[in-house]
Order: sequence, then C-alpha cells, then structure tokens
Amino acid sequence: MDCSLFQSSAHVSGTLRGVGVGPGDVELLTLKAVRVLRTVPVVAYPAPLEGICLARQIAESVLNHNPCRIEIAIRMRFDADRISAQAAYDRGASAIATHLAAGRDVAVLCEGDPLFFGSFSYIVERLGYRFPVEVVPGVNSVTACSAVLQHPFALRDDRAAIIPAQLSEAKIEDLLRKVDSAALIKVGRHFAKVVGVLDRLDLLKRAWHIERAGQQGQRVNSLASMVGGAESKTYFSMILVHRREKMWR
Amino acid sequence: MDCSLFQSSAHVSGTLRGVGVGPGDVELLTLKAVRVLRTVPVVAYPAPLEGICLARQIAESVLNHNPCRIEIAIRMRFDADRISAQAAYDRGASAIATHLAAGRDVAVLCEGDPLFFGSFSYIVERLGYRFPVEVVPGVNSVTACSAVLQHPFALRDDRAAIIPAQLSEAKIEDLLRKVDSAALIKVGRHFAKVVGVLDRLDLLKRAWHIERAGQQGQRVNSLASMVGGAESKTYFSMILVHRREKMWR
Repeated sequence: MDCSLFQSSAHVSGTLRGVGVGPGDVELLTLKAVRVLRTVPVVAYPAPLEGICLARQIAESVLNHNPCRIEIAIRMRFDADRISAQAAYDRGASAIATHLAAGRDVAVLCEGDPLFFGSFSYIVERLGYRFPVEVVPGVNSVTACSAVLQHPFALRDDRAAIIPAQLSEAKIEDLLRKVDSAALIKVGRHFAKVVGVLDRLDLLKRAWHIERAGQQGQRVNSLASMVGGAESKTYFSMILVHRREKMWR
Repeated sequence: MDCSLFQSSAHVSGTLRGVGVGPGDVELLTLKAVRVLRTVPVVAYPAPLEGICLARQIAESVLNHNPCRIEIAIRMRFDADRISAQAAYDRGASAIATHLAAGRDVAVLCEGDPLFFGSFSYIVERLGYRFPVEVVPGVNSVTACSAVLQHPFALRDDRAAIIPAQLSEAKIEDLLRKVDSAALIKVGRHFAKVVGVLDRLDLLKRAWHIERAGQQGQRVNSLASMVGGAESKTYFSMILVHRREKMWR
C-alpha cells in the first residue's frame, strides 16, 4: 500500500500498540493480537539484514488487509553493533511517529512478548512520552520452551531467574546459586561458557537445550548429551535448568 | 453431561492437555487454547471452596459444547492445608485417569500458563508417566502485569527473577540484590514483609503493585503510595520492581 494515499483529518493521535505474537507457532497468537492485526492500518517490525523476521512470519497470515509496513533494518546477529541498532530504532521510531501524529494506529510486531526482552522497549522509550500506548502481551519463550519440555518452570515457592547468556561467568554462576530454576536465554555463541558454569555447579544433568520451540526444526536435547559436540549457533535457543528433578519419564 | 453415557471402544489412551487460559481477559486466550477447548470431551479445573475458579470463568464462553466436567475441590486461601490439597489432587487425578484410560482427552484449565507456578504440575506429576501429555502455553501473569504497567520486565542483559512472597525475608532480599528486575508473586498476606525488604534496598520507589491485571477491578499503584494504607489481601496481585527507571511518563 502506498502510505501517502492516507488522508487524515483526525486531531487525535493514533495509538502505539506493542503486539506480542508468541514464540513461533501461529496458533499461539492470542485472540487480541489477531483482532488488532486484522484491522490495524500500519504495522512495524524488525527486518533483519540477514534472514527473516520471525515476528512478521508469524503474523503474516493475519495481515491479509495489506496494511502499510514499516521495516526497521536491524543486524540481529550476536555481534550486533549497538550504535547502528540504536540508529535503526531512531529511524523506525521516526517513521512510526509520522503515522501516529496523523491519527493512525501502529502495531509493532514482537516475537514472544513485547516487554519480555522484546525490541518494543526500544520503540516505546522513544515514543511513549508522546503518544498513547497499548501493550498486547504474548506467550513468551520461557513458557513456550517449558511447554515443549513438559517440565514445570517453577512451582510452589521456587525462586526462578531469567539470565541472558552474554553476562560474565561470575554473574551467571552467582545468580544460578540463588535459584531453583533458570532460563538461560540468547545462548548462541555463549554456549561453552554456560556449559562450563552449569558443570561447575553440577547442574549439567538437570539442564535442557531447546531450539526453535513450536517452530519447524524444533529440537530438544539434554545438555549433557551435547557437551563435546557441535556448539549451538541458533539464535532461537534456550537452556532450561531445574534443581527439581523431572517428575516423570 | 452425564459422563457415564460415554461409550469407548478405543484401545488408545486419551491425551492429558494442560491448557493455559491466560491471566484473566478472555481475549488473551490463544487460538490453540480455543481450538482445544471447543472440542475436548472432558475438562478439569480447580474448584475453590471459597470464591470462583478464574480459569473456568475465562474458558466458559468457549466451552459451549457441554463437556464432561471434573471439579478439583481446593482450598485456595493462603492458609491452605497442603495435605488436604494433595488429597484433592489425588482424587482429581484419579477421575481424570479414568477418562484418559477410556481414550478420552482431558483438558486441565490453568490460569496463566500451566507450568509457570500452575496447578497443572500437580496433575501431571501424578499422570504424566502413564498417559501422553500436551501443554498449551499461555500468557503468564508477569507478562500480563508488565503490559498493564507498560514497563519492560527486562531487556538487553538484565537479570530477572520471579520470587514467591512466602519465602523468608532473607531469601527474598538475597535474590533481589542479584537482579535488575523482579516479580514478587503471591503477595497477599506477605505484603508488609515484602515492603520492608524493598524499603531496606531503597527500591520502594521503583516498585509497583498490580491487582487483577486485565480483569474487572484492575488496579495499579506505586508501592510507595500504598505504604501505611490498607494491606493487599488479593490473591491475584503482584509487585513488579525494576532498577531501571521507567523510560517515559
């Protein structure tokens, strides 16, 4: 759609909507996400310079009314240059702001949940003080990986943590010692470091590596079985570790 | 429906399905949850001795084909007697097993997500070794409360924790010192204790109390504004705390 065709006489701003589209399976969209995506005049999403945008791929079957599209060109690899990413979000936010100021709602598509390590944060920190905001929560990756594993992420009085794998070994170990279960996210090239920490804490046998939960190519492996093998390089991977033994099987 | 009317010649077991129905808003059901709930022959849910079952209430509009129902009578109050709860899950699991053995699928309804502090864990630990299991993940309460607050639960390399408020002051404080953000769950009668810990850590001004996210009666308050007032007694409440300042407003 040629976005310049829009005519707006509205004096009311559009609403910035962060829409969580879940972890990969189209069926894990919420009814609310579907309703918003079916009608919103403008959608924005990260457009990685390498590979496809998973959030867009999940939403595509619902976006059948040909909305105006804003692609935010982001380098998604682990070696992302933060400065260029910030510049990309600046440009994306500026394009989004033009629509909002003209009274058109904009849905920003987010894998998983918009505010759970989601890139929507980078948009809303730039525009949240100027425009109305609505967040449509989604099924996040920790929950989705736990479903695949069929093991409780936490129950009763368990302490649980979400730990980005790019942190230092010391910080990861320090936090793992304090909790009953953890999700180590963004593992990728930090695989060997994380395995080392879990081994020191004698938690390797309680850890699972999940790739592409609910997507094509889904894989689940005990972490112990992967040690010494080819390292994970998949962006969409997570390690779940529980002091509590799997209750069955 | 009179469940005894079922005739089954199947030699294949039914599947035990843990279905996350989200935090309260019917629109936060996933498409997958709706598909399962529309067709499943048997549903099971906790039936609190006091008050209503939120999971059932959320699912009710979808369960319009009159499935067979198994009510698991649970005392949901904070002073729950664990022994009687375990006996109730024993009885519930036994009723569910009868249907599964006869080849009928059973959906166990869970507020939020089935494996994120969900009662599905107590059913699956009893039946998971005997029957096929499928988990339908749902939008969990941390994600839903963050959406209401419009503040990222975590981003970049933040360390995040989920901390049940029934833990000791020392354990809560110890873990809070290690993380950038936290969700304190099941606050209820532990309100004063949690406030005390957050005050000692100078985090009161960064903490928010959210009740009934996405449900009727939703309330959001800065925790600082609640100190000295009437204590929260609501089961469906959570405190979110972030070292990172709110980015806007």
